[in-house]
Formats: sequence, C-alpha cells, structure tokens
Amino acid sequence: MDFASDNVTGVAPEIMQAIAAANEPVAAAPYGDDDITQGLDALFSGVFEADCQVFPVATGTAANALSMSVMSPPFGGIYCLANSHSNWDECGAPEFYTGGAKLIPIKGENGKLTRALFDQTIAEQGPAHGVHNVQTAAVTVTQSTEMGTVYAPDEIREICSFARANGLYVHVDGSRFANAVASLGCRPAELTVAAGVDILSFGATKNGAMAAEAVVVFNPELTETLGFRRKRGAHLFSKMRFLSAQLEAYLTDGLWLKLAGHANAMAERLADGLSDVAGVEILFPVEANMIFARFPAALVDELHEAGFWFHHWGDADQPMVRLVTAFNTDPDDVDRFVETAHGAER
Amino acid sequence: MDFASDNVTGVAPEIMQAIAAANEPVAAAPYGDDDITQGLDALFSGVFEADCQVFPVATGTAANALSMSVMSPPFGGIYCLANSHSNWDECGAPEFYTGGAKLIPIKGENGKLTRALFDQTIAEQGPAHGVHNVQTAAVTVTQSTEMGTVYAPDEIREICSFARANGLYVHVDGSRFANAVASLGCRPAELTVAAGVDILSFGATKNGAMAAEAVVVFNPELTETLGFRRKRGAHLFSKMRFLSAQLEAYLTDGLWLKLAGHANAMAERLADGLSDVAGVEILFPVEANMIFARFPAALVDELHEAGFWFHHWGDADQPMVRLVTAFNTDPDDVDRFVETAHGAER
Amino acid sequence: MDFASDNVTGVAPEIMQAIAAANEPVAAAPYGDDDITQGLDALFSGVFEADCQVFPVATGTAANALSMSVMSPPFGGIYCLANSHSNWDECGAPEFYTGGAKLIPIKGENGKLTRALFDQTIAEQGPAHGVHNVQTAAVTVTQSTEMGTVYAPDEIREICSFARANGLYVHVDGSRFANAVASLGCRPAELTVAAGVDILSFGATKNGAMAAEAVVVFNPELTETLGFRRKRGAHLFSKMRFLSAQLEAYLTDGLWLKLAGHANAMAERLADGLSDVAGVEILFPVEANMIFARFPAALVDELHEAGFWFHHWGDADQPMVRLVTAFNTDPDDVDRFVETAHGAER
Amino acid sequence: MDFASDNVTGVAPEIMQAIAAANEPVAAAPYGDDDITQGLDALFSGVFEADCQVFPVATGTAANALSMSVMSPPFGGIYCLANSHSNWDECGAPEFYTGGAKLIPIKGENGKLTRALFDQTIAEQGPAHGVHNVQTAAVTVTQSTEMGTVYAPDEIREICSFARANGLYVHVDGSRFANAVASLGCRPAELTVAAGVDILSFGATKNGAMAAEAVVVFNPELTETLGFRRKRGAHLFSKMRFLSAQLEAYLTDGLWLKLAGHANAMAERLADGLSDVAGVEILFPVEANMIFARFPAALVDELHEAGFWFHHWGDADQPMVRLVTAFNTDPDDVDRFVETAHGAER
Repeated sequence: MDFASDNVTGVAPEIMQAIAAANEPVAAAPYGDDDITQGLDALFSGVFEADCQVFPVATGTAANALSMSVMSPPFGGIYCLANSHSNWDECGAPEFYTGGAKLIPIKGENGKLTRALFDQTIAEQGPAHGVHNVQTAAVTVTQSTEMGTVYAPDEIREICSFARANGLYVHVDGSRFANAVASLGCRPAELTVAAGVDILSFGATKNGAMAAEAVVVFNPELTETLGFRRKRGAHLFSKMRFLSAQLEAYLTDGLWLKLAGHANAMAERLADGLSDVAGVEILFPVEANMIFARFPAALVDELHEAGFWFHHWGDADQPMVRLVTAFNTDPDDVDRFVETAHGAER
Repeated sequence: MDFASDNVTGVAPEIMQAIAAANEPVAAAPYGDDDITQGLDALFSGVFEADCQVFPVATGTAANALSMSVMSPPFGGIYCLANSHSNWDECGAPEFYTGGAKLIPIKGENGKLTRALFDQTIAEQGPAHGVHNVQTAAVTVTQSTEMGTVYAPDEIREICSFARANGLYVHVDGSRFANAVASLGCRPAELTVAAGVDILSFGATKNGAMAAEAVVVFNPELTETLGFRRKRGAHLFSKMRFLSAQLEAYLTDGLWLKLAGHANAMAERLADGLSDVAGVEILFPVEANMIFARFPAALVDELHEAGFWFHHWGDADQPMVRLVTAFNTDPDDVDRFVETAHGAER
Repeated sequence: MDFASDNVTGVAPEIMQAIAAANEPVAAAPYGDDDITQGLDALFSGVFEADCQVFPVATGTAANALSMSVMSPPFGGIYCLANSHSNWDECGAPEFYTGGAKLIPIKGENGKLTRALFDQTIAEQGPAHGVHNVQTAAVTVTQSTEMGTVYAPDEIREICSFARANGLYVHVDGSRFANAVASLGCRPAELTVAAGVDILSFGATKNGAMAAEAVVVFNPELTETLGFRRKRGAHLFSKMRFLSAQLEAYLTDGLWLKLAGHANAMAERLADGLSDVAGVEILFPVEANMIFARFPAALVDELHEAGFWFHHWGDADQPMVRLVTAFNTDPDDVDRFVETAHGAER
Repeated sequence: MDFASDNVTGVAPEIMQAIAAANEPVAAAPYGDDDITQGLDALFSGVFEADCQVFPVATGTAANALSMSVMSPPFGGIYCLANSHSNWDECGAPEFYTGGAKLIPIKGENGKLTRALFDQTIAEQGPAHGVHNVQTAAVTVTQSTEMGTVYAPDEIREICSFARANGLYVHVDGSRFANAVASLGCRPAELTVAAGVDILSFGATKNGAMAAEAVVVFNPELTETLGFRRKRGAHLFSKMRFLSAQLEAYLTDGLWLKLAGHANAMAERLADGLSDVAGVEILFPVEANMIFARFPAALVDELHEAGFWFHHWGDADQPMVRLVTAFNTDPDDVDRFVETAHGAER
C-alpha cells in the first residue's frame, strides 16, 4: 500500500499491450523513422488543436532539460519556483543541458508562480547591467504543481503575458499534465498553446507508461536544434517505436485522462477521509493526485506500522507528509488508510 | 529482409516476457532501489568473475558518454579510432558528458587500435607542454569493432598495457560485446577485467533487448561520481526495474551468447555465400555480425529491387556495402540474399 | 568627480613603475616561469603567514570562476548571497567554469551570510534525496561585501565552521579584500587561512592595479587542476611577468593597505559629511569604501548637474544611491560633494 | 639570446608609452565604454577597409576560443590542422568555450590547409548521418602558420570558397597575422574580409604588445552573443582602456607592420646564414618569423652551451629545431648564432 509516489507504479495494461504490438514487425526503421513515431506529430497536434512537433524521450528530466536547452543560451536565466523539480530534483540537468544557464529560483507558497512573484523578483534583482547579468530567457512552471495544486488557464495566460512582455519563452513541466487536464476538465490547448506556452514536457511515465515522455514544441522557433541536442544527450532511442507506442496508446481513446482522473479521484477520496482526523492539517487545495499535510508524529508511526508507505520530513512532532495516488491506486487501500488514521485517533 | 543494422530488430521473446513479469508487482521502489536492479551487481560480477558495479541506461551512447565522463576531466584527451561510434556517430555526446574533453582520433584499417598506432600518434603530437595540451586520460576501443572484426584477448591486453604505462584508463564500447564473446568463445573476463579494462559499455539493445545497456565498472575509482552524472544526464529511470529486467533476462541461461551466436552464424553464412560472387570483395575478416564489402553497383541495385535493405556509399561503380545480421535473422533470408546475388551475376 | 565605482580609476604610480621595470629584461620565460611570478608564492605566503599557491589572473571574475571550478563538481551547489557579484554580475561565469554547478542564492540584508541564513536555507530545501539534488560543495562570501560592510574574523570563522561541518569548501571573493583588512586592522590570515578559508580571490585591480588578481589557494587539495583550468579558460598569460609585477608591487611596503586605507577614509569622510543632510538615509555601516543610501530624487539631480557621477536606481522619489571611493579619491572632491549636498537642502 | 619564442619578449616602447598615456585621465568609463575602446571599431575598419566589430581580449587563446564559440554550436565540428595551436596547445579552450564542439583535425605538411585536404577528410568521414554526426560548422586556419609559412590571398580564398559551399564559417588565428601581412606586402583585407573570412583573432602580444589581442568580426551574424560570451569567459576587463591603448598604438603609423617586418627580416637573415651549415636542413619556406629545421644533435648542444635558447625535440641524432625571431631580435644575436653554427662544423 504505497502512497510514496506515482513512480512506484508499473505499466497500465493498455500500454503494455501497445509495447507488445510494436514488437510484431520483424524490422522497423530505427531512430524514429518508424511508422508509430512518424504519426506522433499528427496525434499530438490533434490533441492540442495546433501544429506541434514531438520529441519522445524516456525520462521527465530529459524532457525538461532538453526543453530548457532550446529556450536559453548558456548565458541565460530561467525563472522557476525554488522547490520545482527542475531546480531541485534533477541534479542540475537543466544547467547541464543548457551549458550552464542559471535557474533563478523564486519562493512560492502553493507551488505556483504568479505575476506578483515575478515583479518582486525583478525588483529585488535591481537594474540590469547589460553583459554583466545573465540574460533572462525563459520561465518554467509545473502543471500540475509539485504541491498538488493546478494552474487554471487564466493563471497560465497571466504568466505567458508577463513572459511575452519580457521576451521570455514559457515552458510547462507537465510530468503530471494529465492530472491537471483531468482536474480542470478543460481542453489541453487552454493550458498550453492557446495560452501562449512555447514548449511542454508532456509526461506519461507517472501515469501508466513504462518510461515515456514527450517534448511537445508549439513554437517552431524552438525545434531547430532539438534533434541534435537529444542525440547529443544520448536520448535518441534506436528502437524508438517502443517509446512512441507508449505515447500513442496513452493518447488513444482518452486513456491518459481516464488514468489521471482515477488518480485524482483517489486523492480527493483520501483528502476527504482525512479531513476530520484530529491533528491532520491539509496544507494546499487537493486539485490533482497529491496531498501535503501535517500529521501528528504518532499517526505517521501507526500508519507506517500498518503497512502504508509515504514520505515525511521536517518537524519531529508535526511532520510534513506527502501522499501520492496513482492511476492504479486501489480504493480499498485508500479506505483502509483513512480507517487506520481514524483508528489511530482513539 | 533488412540487413541495414541490428537496431531495426525488435525484442527477443525471453526479454519481452521478463518485462511483463517485472510489471506484476503493484509497486516497486523507484530509481533502482527495486529488487531486480539491486541484484544486477551480483549477476554481472558472476558473469565477469570479478566485483563490478553496474549502472543501467537505455542507450549505448549514454553508456559510452557516461563512461568517458568518469575517465577524463574536461581538460582531458581520449584516444579513439577516428571512425568509431564515439567519435563520429554520437553527435558529440562524449564531449558533452565530459565537459569538453578532446577525443583524439586515430586512423586504423580494420577497426582496431594497436600499440603501433598509439606510438605513431604520440610521435606526431610532438613533445608534451604541461598545461598547454589536453591531458591524455583514457583509451576507448570498440568490441566487436565497427568493422565487424574482434579484438583477441592478447590485443586487449596490449592496449591495456600501453594505457597503464601512460596513466590512461581503458574503456570498451561493447555495444556488440556479446558478438565478440560468442565469436571468440572466451570468458568475458578475458576481454575485460582480466586484461586490465576499467569500464565497459555492455550492450543489449542491438542483440534482443528493447532499450537496455549497462555501464559496468571494474575499476572502483570510477564509480564515485557516476550516479550523479547519470541523474544529471537524465538517464536515471524512475521505473528502473523495466531496464534491469531486460539485462537480467539477457544474462540468464546464456541468452546473450545464444542470440549473438546466431547473429554471428548468419554473418558467416552470408559471407560464405557471397565469397564467390563475381565482383564482390569482402574487406575485413567476418568475425562478428557485420560484413563490409565492395559490391558492383549493379548488384546493389538488383538486391534493393529484390527487397533487401542495406547501406551502401562511396564509389559509384564499386560502392562500399555494409551488411548486418542480428539475433533474429532468418537463415532463409540469408540464403535468398546469396541466391539473388549469384543470380545477378548472370 | 566620479563616485560610480572604483573600477573607473587608473593605475597607482608604484604599480605603473613596476610594470615598466618588468619590461627591462630583453627576454623572460613565458607563462609564469619568469622570476617575478616564481616569487609570488613566497610573497603571498609571507603576507598570509601560511603556505599558499598563487595563480595570477587579470579579472576578478576569472579569479572567482576558477576558484569555484576547483571547489565544486558540475553537479555541485555553491551557497552564495543572492546579490553577490558571483551570482548576479558575472553573466554566469561560475556556472561556465564549473561546468554548470548551481549557485544557491540566499537573501541577506547587509551583504553578509550568516549561520542562521544557512540553517534557514537548508530547512527550506527540505530533505536531501541522494543523486536527485545537486551536491552542496562550497560557500562563497564577499569581503569586503557588496554592501560596503566587512565580515569580522569571528563571522568568517562561524561560516567556516558551518562549512566544515557540512563538507563544504569556503571561498572568499576578495575583489575588495584590501579594504576589509585596512578597515579591521587585522592580520590577513585572520580573515582567511586561520579562520578556515580554503581559497581566496585576491583583488588588486579596483585598488590601484591595471588588471591583476590572484587566486590564492590555502587548501592544497584545490591546486591539482587549477593550472589546467586557467589555461583552458584562456587566462594563462604568455607575458605573465606583467601581471605578476603588479601583484608584487601591490604587496610591497604595504602599498595595498595604504591605498585601501585611503579609499576607506574617503568613504568615511563622505558618510560623515552626508549624515546630517536632510532626506539622506545611509543604509548600512560604512566599513569599507562604499556607501549605500537613499537620497531624495532632487538631490540626485542636483549632484549630477554639479558634475558628480554615481549610480542610482529604484524608487523614483527616494532612489537608492551607491557611492564608491577609491585609492585615488581626492578629498577635495569628497568635500565638494558634501557641500553640494548641503547646499541642495536649502 | 632567446630564439625559443616571440612570447619571451617584452613590450615595444611605443606601446608602453600608450599604456602610460592611458593612465593620465583620473577616471574613465569601465568595461570598454572609454574613448579609446570606443574608437577601435573605426580604427580596425580603416585598416581592413570594411566595417568590423572589435572585441579586445588579453590572450590569443581567448580570441580563438571566443571566435569558435560564435561560429559553432555545441554539437558542431570545426575543421583545423592537427598541429594547430587551437587543436593542440590551448588545453581544450575551444572545446570549453563552444560547449564541447569537436575540432576535426587534419594532417598537413607545411602548416596549411588546402581544398584537397578538406576533400580527403570528408571522403574518409563517409556519408553524413543527420543528427548522428556533429554538424560541421567552421574552418580555422592559422596565419602566419605554426610552421612559419604564409597563406597567399589565393589560398585563403580557396578555403573560403570551400567553406561557403559547405555552409561553414572561416576563422583566422592571426596570433602572428602581422608577420603574414608584412611578408606578403598585401593589404590586410586581401587575407581576410575580401577573401571571405568571417572572423579574425588579431594578435599583438607576440609582436610587441604586453597582452592584447582582438577578436575582429567581419560577419555581423557573429557578433550577437560575443559580448556575453566574453564576459562569461571572464575576459571583459574593467579597465579596458589599457588593453585598447595597446591595440591603438599597435595600429598607429604602421607600428604593427614595422615590428613584424623586423622579425621577418631577422628570420630570413638567420635562415640564410644557416643554409650552408653542414647537416642543417630547413624544412619549410621561411616566410614569417619562424624556422623549422633539422639540426645535428651536436650542433644543438654547442648552441645551447653558447647561450642560445630554443626548442628542440624528436629524433636523438637529428632533432627538430624551432627558431623564432621577434620584433626586438638583435641582428648581432642572429649573426652570432650563425657564426656559432658555422664554428661548430669545424
């Protein structure tokens, strides 16, 4: 009963079948010249209602770092949230792929960047000094956020409007993009291309794929060097069809939103169940598949003893807890978690 | 009937089954903390009869570039063959991962580096000038070679002896390592750790895996930063078990050598069949699964028309041809190729 | 009458003479094998009362970036003040030289890092995640600070103590190091090697040299690759004697402290004179050669009209003003500045 | 009596005076906003009879590496001579500044690249493979060459014509550019902008400056990021006027050609004198200020004993010798060298 992360999960059956099917031809052109990969641009362009180019890769960090490498020169700066995955959980991959660009970290409360935070950051930086400063080049936001919240289309548009006014590209780290779309019930375009987003790390791995993400490029300026950078980063798969088959299945018949919808529903069920447990404080709106909460230390211990696994850290008496649900979370496990939590009160 | 490359193939059934089996647990620890990955060090240590540490990745270029990144500082030099994959077919991935080390290309005839070639290279470089030159740090050789030949254990030992005398690490690009072992019928250790090799890119993808390679580190000096560099390069898979399961199956019950043995046998059968075709000149000993030959241009055309696919280039009248067999090459296809070639003579 | 920066100044006569004298030999060994350069280690070791190795370079940014390149791996993190020169005024040179390390910016009030700020930063980062995070490797502090304040020996020791406990190297950006030593009247060692500092960017350019800085390495672990990195960064001068002669003259007969003492005295005189000007608020203790203040906008205008040059920014009514004095600031100019400011009140 | 290199020399009196004169203003705008630096574009544009932009730096390696950083992306390739300074004597600075581009070394006889050598190199590389290969981006040639020869305008044009046909930029490493112009007696433009050269490392240091080189950009496409890269490389001097004053004096009243003409004349005098010394074989035409020769080992010893300093290497009996003259070489020293060599015959 693992609520530690959505990356402890395996592969959804539909995606495993697609992988097996991709193995049927005796031979297929390598490095993305196969039929499945060749169809991805059209498939994604349909989903996003706009022409886009798609570069499959196997990890979310690769998608993020490659995206940044085409948005920023080595002497560029990229605004991000301080505790974003790009800034703090990728061991410097964005710096590596950009040739040493500077991620400019901004502290935020609920996982979201806002116009006000940008303004404050720029004011604190003081006046620009030509070649002396890194040249701000891009903004990256995470959708759904690292705090389990979701940017509404308006919020994305506001960020894109700020970016356009300042000559910045906008990247969305969508490692959990499906959860945001499922949560909002909006069209994918509203959160991306129609709002002004230039490039998206479109995640599938955490939501039922084996290892498949896509760099989805809406702004054609950003495609010129991406293929070279992917190869140079050692992320061009010879047997690409097995990556692409995952993405194809993921987007077929709404599988991605079905899986994410389940994960979101499980998080809501869990949050609802915990809402009246004594000493539990849920910290942010539960809008996707993650819950951040303060738990009494004793509750953490009891839940661990009962076989529930999740991360906790910080304050000894009232630790911070992160609970993550997934495409395959069993509702009975959620209910048992809630029952155990209530039982522990007594 | 594709003889273009072994990377046009799919996945061997045993490996596909292993992937499916790895999907059975509802949850597994991510990022390599799963049981399958945890068992790889022991598995490889058994195969190589020596303690080694194993870092699974998904592409051969990643294995090579990461290996080089721990052998050479940014101001280092790495001796390689001019037409090696690392030097000429990875879009500069070794330079990227090392932070700009210099691959020092050496021209060779049959895909092999030799002591004489090193001596000549050093003589041509002239005297060392302290900080002014890049500091030579490593040697990389490809086994089996890009020309379809195989280094004998003696030849590897000679290179390692030169390297040790000059303070250089030795890397083997073993994207087709299984073909060399199968060809020589020797113990894997004889071609690596027992000969003095420090680090090996152990390939499986071209020989029946979906996308799985392993950096196998024999010299413990080289492990310290590898994990960070793999993560930073965006090659640490969250659902690592699916990479590791491929490697596990590949090494189980001698599957890797069975598959490579078949590929080698098919190349031999093809070379034998072509040996008396008029105008065909086979250029190097066919010791693994690749044949380099000169074909009459008309023969190339007839074979293409008959549905055989392979690369050719260079001279218009007598082009260079590369034929690659694989773990799943159908002997009937080989025989048809030979028959067509003979037919074309008439 | 330029109070914009100490880098608008020229060369002190003693240093110009040393350059001319270095030109007298018809030939001298290049790349630092000349006698003057060869004597620098001993000269600096005397000044710092400890064995050190000295690498002359021509810019402060080079000194800082090279220092960081030996303290941090590419996947490392370096704690710094957010508005430090290294973080915000070097166009990413530290990122470039380290191969993409992350400068971890910390907001401080008066130009100083403290133990409390480190603790808060680490708490906000949350728990470490092995290979997922950049590995914190170093701390850099500026002495005298970008805010015109000075770290006392105790404050430096506290930072070094934190660093040692966390496995971090300590770098001092001493582009205005002389001003700090002159201000405190302490021994240079107390602010560096005796306090636990590993490496120092020792500045001379802003304080009377033409273009001369020295990377002074106290911790011998950090010297191994510095020479290669300096050459690779294109900072190894062939006619090095002309760099070294500047440093030699600077340290001879206490010239460096005489020059810095004058600059500091001029800043104090200016601050004293401004202290009772209506609407002027001096923001930080004036401990070196810089004054940060809020001025009424009208005062800024009148001073500019009167021919005084200095930077101002921010709030339109009550802009932030930076005044910098130097080794050659004319006391009459200071007095005229003060008189003009008082005159403007009326 | 030093014939080891032209970098053992000091500063020409005219240049030392210019440095002193630049020190007269009490203050000057920093970072190149001073009057002297502001005049350089016009000054160089006059000399080269074409609009150009000039970026002063202090080392030839900086000029070369920065030039390459704007010609080639990280995944680019730069054709060069194998024993060129850029490829073998800069500790990988071009790789560092380009973010890991590949210098593609070509072996040549007399220090010169030719159309035939390019054709041969490309033929050996085999067919291009899209993203798999580094993308060839530029050519760099050295003028005068590392072998003491000089490219005629026709030879430069031929290279530029090849480059243009292949979409490559052309860089000239002109660390001894003055020697070439003085040798050929041609207009500087004929060797550069009029022939199709995009960017020039214009050297002054080896020919009488203290430490001053200029990146001279003829192709405006290449200027966009150069300022940022110079700053990020830590090569933007705060007191830039002292660099620029050297360049200004160097180009005033033909000083650069007068100094180079002397160096060339001394090399010719030395070569003439040595031409009939038994056992001395001069290897390349002596067209600039360097002589490469084979000397009997005993002759090397006698000359060293007599106090002449120069480099020798290679064959024990018949070592390779390099003799370099300079702007300040004393004709009497040349004559003494020749006399000693003749004396040694006896």
